[in-house]
Amino acid sequence: MEFQLAPELARDGIVLAQWPLCNVLLLNDSQYPWFVLVPRVPNVKEIIDLNDEQQLLFWQESAQLSRFIKEVFTPDKLNVAALGNMVPQLHVHHIARFKHDAAWPKPVWGVNPMVPYRDEEIAVIKKHFEKVKSNELLN
Amino acid sequence: MEFQLAPELARDGIVLAQWPLCNVLLLNDSQYPWFVLVPRVPNVKEIIDLNDEQQLLFWQESAQLSRFIKEVFTPDKLNVAALGNMVPQLHVHHIARFKHDAAWPKPVWGVNPMVPYRDEEIAVIKKHFEKVKSNELLN
Repeated sequence: MEFQLAPELARDGIVLAQWPLCNVLLLNDSQYPWFVLVPRVPNVKEIIDLNDEQQLLFWQESAQLSRFIKEVFTPDKLNVAALGNMVPQLHVHHIARFKHDAAWPKPVWGVNPMVPYRDEEIAVIKKHFEKVKSNELLN
Repeated sequence: MEFQLAPELARDGIVLAQWPLCNVLLLNDSQYPWFVLVPRVPNVKEIIDLNDEQQLLFWQESAQLSRFIKEVFTPDKLNVAALGNMVPQLHVHHIARFKHDAAWPKPVWGVNPMVPYRDEEIAVIKKHFEKVKSNELLN
């Protein structure tokens, strides 16, 4: 069976890159720099449903995304979370949190309706993201 | 500088085990089987603040804890999350979620006041947990 991105993630996310294991999405909510990793593995709900090799690669890609977020946005805190209560397809949130953001100190889920980016804001984030080369994944 | 468990985690958690990298805590909230991994590394706020070797070990211990939770509680979904907006010391939640639980499908944080376990309930969870040997970590 082929991998297909869950409709809710396809609706709310903008694909920034296809890394070796995961699609990297930017969630279209300008209130927080909010990224999501989705392994392109069909029928996977939990991180431990990935095989050992995939888990290793997953956490390398997660670390790479976290370093990107930390460097570009200098957040007060990263939030990294695999929830999936609403959308069971395995996807892991990576969110830059700030003491002045719209939900602080609460988790972001369900606090505020999404506020879509303007096109030029997405272009800026995409430009930042282009600096991340997949060959830096293991650095 | 020596590692010291954050006062909030010491207050709300019951130490189940000291694994090679992490203390394993049971949060004293009987509404959800809720476990927390805390690496015994001082001054660490983010997963990517751990060195490569520690990160690898961390995710092995996380997988071990996740497998324990899945086997013993058979949840509808695992929630695995590093937030830390309130308590900056690195700690990662591992929560068994059920479609009939008190917060479903929301994340658990801040939804309901904690409901402490009765002593005999803690004893049952501790007994389950004794089956987890640290030498099974890499299985």
